[in-house]
Amino acid sequence: MTQAAVPRRGRPGYDQSAVLRTAIDLFNRQGYDGTSMGDLAAERGVTKSAIYHHVPSKGHLLAQALDEALDGLEAAIADVEGMPDASAYDRLRSVVRRSVEVLVAHQPAVTLLLRVRGNSEVELQALERRRRVDARLASLVQDAVDEGSLRTDLAPDLVSRLLFGMVNSLVEWHRPGRGVGATELAEAIATLAFDGLHR
Amino acid sequence: MTQAAVPRRGRPGYDQSAVLRTAIDLFNRQGYDGTSMGDLAAERGVTKSAIYHHVPSKGHLLAQALDEALDGLEAAIADVEGMPDASAYDRLRSVVRRSVEVLVAHQPAVTLLLRVRGNSEVELQALERRRRVDARLASLVQDAVDEGSLRTDLAPDLVSRLLFGMVNSLVEWHRPGRGVGATELAEAIATLAFDGLHR
Repeated sequence: MTQAAVPRRGRPGYDQSAVLRTAIDLFNRQGYDGTSMGDLAAERGVTKSAIYHHVPSKGHLLAQALDEALDGLEAAIADVEGMPDASAYDRLRSVVRRSVEVLVAHQPAVTLLLRVRGNSEVELQALERRRRVDARLASLVQDAVDEGSLRTDLAPDLVSRLLFGMVNSLVEWHRPGRGVGATELAEAIATLAFDGLHR
Repeated sequence: MTQAAVPRRGRPGYDQSAVLRTAIDLFNRQGYDGTSMGDLAAERGVTKSAIYHHVPSKGHLLAQALDEALDGLEAAIADVEGMPDASAYDRLRSVVRRSVEVLVAHQPAVTLLLRVRGNSEVELQALERRRRVDARLASLVQDAVDEGSLRTDLAPDLVSRLLFGMVNSLVEWHRPGRGVGATELAEAIATLAFDGLHR
């Protein structure tokens, strides 16, 4: 009865997802520490208790956002690792393209993930998962080196840092829905990194 | 007489520079808004009035830090623009290497610059200067495209974003004084970007 009296409450699944989108945008704009559940309620134009009806805490929203980014990256890596007939070079080139696509599809959540500094248990767990993601990416680079398909004058761990550093830099300048699309971006990054800019 | 009574006060030039180093580290660690002049005094083990003896305000420290980063980048670009006998390709390859060296030499200040979001007049002015830096870098890319020395299947503005996105990504993982040095990093990035990873 009490619930039915709140007119702005819609379908729970939709509302939860919309609250999460708004929370991620606020966290990116004003920082996680600088965002209160009151800010979130104000931004959504609802009461704080309406927000708490959908989510138990601010930390819960952060955890969901970081999971979204990490789930996407882990799924992309798992797909590529599961291509046994592909060469190590093709697997690496695929994972670069797939990472770009995940980053563009989940840009606000990935932006948040890349800014995490480990200030809470939720952030530390996300950092630990991100380290495992980075290690799997580095291992795909190493496989391509071992196969003999990459140049040998660059250290594999440095290649991995630079390659995914370039991919991650997208969050600083790519505007979702504007400019080039995910597929074109993915192809451009793979071309620059593997084939080089020099004609 | 009052000044001579403060035992920890050393040579003014040295102290000002040391206060700036500490301020930049604190701004990077806990954010500019999250850092007070009291935090800075505590970190240096001096009184707040000793800090105010060296610097008039927190905004002044931020401005000095952002100037340090921008001065370095602008000097590198000016050097390269002043190489009239070099090909556009060599100028671009040089500016990539030079940018990496500036970034490593002034990593804390550049890190701060890259995180600036325009929350104050000082930040807005730095962002405006950074936009001019980016435009000059983009113009060096365009010159190399016009000269015919870069591949033509990637848009010049996208190439510029990716190239300097990769350079800037260093601040996220390079640890000054550890791992590869500035020259080796600069060469590795130029090799990856211009010659490509594929053997």
